[in-house]
Amino acid sequence: MTELFAPRRSIEQVEEGSELAPKFDQQGLIPVVTTDHASGELLMHGYMNAEALRKSIVTGEAHYYSRSRKTLWHKGATSGLVQQIRELLIDDDQDCIWMRVDVAGSGASCHVGYRSCFYRRVPLGENTAGAPLEFTEDNKLFDPDEVYGDAPNPTRL
Amino acid sequence: MTELFAPRRSIEQVEEGSELAPKFDQQGLIPVVTTDHASGELLMHGYMNAEALRKSIVTGEAHYYSRSRKTLWHKGATSGLVQQIRELLIDDDQDCIWMRVDVAGSGASCHVGYRSCFYRRVPLGENTAGAPLEFTEDNKLFDPDEVYGDAPNPTRL
Repeated sequence: MTELFAPRRSIEQVEEGSELAPKFDQQGLIPVVTTDHASGELLMHGYMNAEALRKSIVTGEAHYYSRSRKTLWHKGATSGLVQQIRELLIDDDQDCIWMRVDVAGSGASCHVGYRSCFYRRVPLGENTAGAPLEFTEDNKLFDPDEVYGDAPNPTRL
Repeated sequence: MTELFAPRRSIEQVEEGSELAPKFDQQGLIPVVTTDHASGELLMHGYMNAEALRKSIVTGEAHYYSRSRKTLWHKGATSGLVQQIRELLIDDDQDCIWMRVDVAGSGASCHVGYRSCFYRRVPLGENTAGAPLEFTEDNKLFDPDEVYGDAPNPTRL
């Protein structure tokens, strides 16, 4: 296999070229936006290190870097909710990844049990700003206690 | 106006509650995913500081924090391509924002001139990994030189 990532040589190369030259931040990570291939819904926002990006590209299954567990994370390895990558895109300055995926099993992508991690809407506008968040999903697709057992919750205060 | 952001007191409050308790990182920023309200297409990935999030919520127009220019950024102030927020959502652990927007004017959201910042696809699979990126948009919607003149390009190597 050829080397997957090119060095970043010029703005023109990065923005207009056809070489994959991703920019990893000071922690060695690149943010990843994951949407449902069919519905377009935003499922999650995560991070990859170079290894996770390489594995995602080569295997076609979503790999992330877990910042809370500090390790490579093959999404679905515990829950069975593997994300099959239908399309993987990179942005203009190549510092962000967009994955369009199909989710296996119940179709959930959120560790709280909802389909999407984004299940709460923030009221907008001068008069309603500050009102309570509105839930956009009525039911959880799985019981997190059942799936994850006593594994530590990844949410950090 | 009531205080918009609640303190983060517990995992249950953050994940299951109806209080907006966003987590800003060590730089005071929260990542933002912006999709087209109609098509579901991912338009851009940016960042907000507390002021940008507050202004977005109160005005209903997308405000970001520009990391390259180190300043509050009312999207469209220069280009006219204002993003009207149709829906603003927050994720499970409240460290990421999703905005569904309508874009004014040509509908472009990318400083390179394309509709979306994500105009290049990465070939997947063992046999095609490493092949050249594939362009998904044929034409730019505007000429960046005309719109931005000699303003510095935000892309950093």
